[in-house]
Amino acid sequence: MTASPSLVERILARDVRAIARAISKIENDTPDANEILKALFGQTGRGLAIGITGAPGAGKSTLVDKLALHYRALGKLVGIIAVDPSSPFSGGAILGDRIRMQTLANDPNVFIRSMATRGNLGGLARATVDAVAVLDAAGYDRILIETVGVGQDEVDIVKAADVSVVVLVPGMGDDIQAMKAGIMEIGDIFVINKAEREGVERAERELNALLEMSERSDGWKPPIVRTVATQNRGIAEFTAAIESYGSFRQQHTASLVRRASVAENRLVELLREKLLRRALNEALAPGQLQELADSVASRKRDPYSIVEEISGRIQIK
Amino acid sequence: MTASPSLVERILARDVRAIARAISKIENDTPDANEILKALFGQTGRGLAIGITGAPGAGKSTLVDKLALHYRALGKLVGIIAVDPSSPFSGGAILGDRIRMQTLANDPNVFIRSMATRGNLGGLARATVDAVAVLDAAGYDRILIETVGVGQDEVDIVKAADVSVVVLVPGMGDDIQAMKAGIMEIGDIFVINKAEREGVERAERELNALLEMSERSDGWKPPIVRTVATQNRGIAEFTAAIESYGSFRQQHTASLVRRASVAENRLVELLREKLLRRALNEALAPGQLQELADSVASRKRDPYSIVEEISGRIQIK
Repeated sequence: MTASPSLVERILARDVRAIARAISKIENDTPDANEILKALFGQTGRGLAIGITGAPGAGKSTLVDKLALHYRALGKLVGIIAVDPSSPFSGGAILGDRIRMQTLANDPNVFIRSMATRGNLGGLARATVDAVAVLDAAGYDRILIETVGVGQDEVDIVKAADVSVVVLVPGMGDDIQAMKAGIMEIGDIFVINKAEREGVERAERELNALLEMSERSDGWKPPIVRTVATQNRGIAEFTAAIESYGSFRQQHTASLVRRASVAENRLVELLREKLLRRALNEALAPGQLQELADSVASRKRDPYSIVEEISGRIQIK
Repeated sequence: MTASPSLVERILARDVRAIARAISKIENDTPDANEILKALFGQTGRGLAIGITGAPGAGKSTLVDKLALHYRALGKLVGIIAVDPSSPFSGGAILGDRIRMQTLANDPNVFIRSMATRGNLGGLARATVDAVAVLDAAGYDRILIETVGVGQDEVDIVKAADVSVVVLVPGMGDDIQAMKAGIMEIGDIFVINKAEREGVERAERELNALLEMSERSDGWKPPIVRTVATQNRGIAEFTAAIESYGSFRQQHTASLVRRASVAENRLVELLREKLLRRALNEALAPGQLQELADSVASRKRDPYSIVEEISGRIQIK
């Protein structure tokens, strides 16, 4: 199976409809999605992917919008990918109907997309990273990836970016402590948004104390930037911090270790999905998974033996 | 490979050290973990698993502690599993050093465990559900599963419980809207904690409006319970709501659909992990994954072709 050359060519020419179509193919994991990604791979690695995470209510969307406007003022082409937790029952996207700032939505040099659907097969992290690759190949200079949740999928997505930003707000109290292991370690840059609020000094102090306890192998000291995104305050400083880490990363060989680790995660993620899809399609008859699930639900069979049986039908050379 | 019969027997006799050891085997996915789970499967399905999720700062830990105390007062055996986001770099657990209420920690009829480690192979959701099965087989009447994040893994874990609880706090404003698709639909029961705070009426009104918009196929109307966990207020009502849904679920055939769907997700999750593990062990030489990752990081090869090549070594009968 070969990809439609025209679609790849159109993506490289930054044709917005072609880009959107490619991302849909990636989301649905159509047979030609892989071919498109292979063809684009050689053109990736030029844009800077910026992953932004933090607790709900931290103001990430506004921050991302203001960051995008700032990059636009600098003449950069901007891609925005908003990663939504999928709706477990209906598969609906929460950001699908959120209205992004009009100025952004009408700007032809800004591409906005939300990624949400995750079925039984998983793959939201894989699909998001692939979508970033498409925007990168298409020539977007800065690709902003905003995640809504703070779970492992979101951490995986943000880790795969070139620059990882963790957004906090004053008054989180114990939450800064609670987040330290899960999220703190992925932050190349920390933003304290809603910095006009009481408690900003304390939040910065606590954050500093945590950061001082952990030393990075690459020697980078993650800066803390205060912003009030709704008032556009601190956005220039935030942008400067991003660009500064972006340059640092390119120059330091220690960052090669991180890149290899990102690549390894990516291979594992792609492999995981590929194998599962093959097993479901090739080792099971249509409807058989449902039947087996019914037998587990009614406690006639245990799931562990079923999985062993399916695995027994698979041979690895 | 067969499981040590004594370990299974000791688990069924509710030997705390045997239970802890089995959960460690599950976390590390040792070869005998599967045999232990197979042997225990016939004894599961008696306890009620209660999954509790919500944004950081909603007071879930205190709520879980108070719920556990309430169940203890009713003479129930209680298991608590706290699911922590893993630390992406160091693999550390955030709740490992959190001090649970002394009264709980010293009660021999309460088993407390935190689950955190998730390596490249994933499987936190799978391991958590398996750990619940061990506690269930061991005879714990109520198994409380507390998740810290609000990402897809956490949603998967809570969905796999018998009763799913979503915890909110007043003043979340837009967050209730933002959460609606991702989390609202999994709630069998909603708790507005910190209900002494301003905005509780509004939060309940908004939540009610959202719940009225969506009708469940099983006819259950998720109740909203107000609590102030720190003051032990509303805990009896919360417990009553859980028990009420637990009974409803057993009596209604519509819940069979949900049980089958939970079983299907579980089969897929177990299969996904099994296949990935086999591929990494059997299709790749030691160190080969790292080499391939380096070739991707240095842009010598694209990850899609590599995965196709590995997949080509796998035959499915």
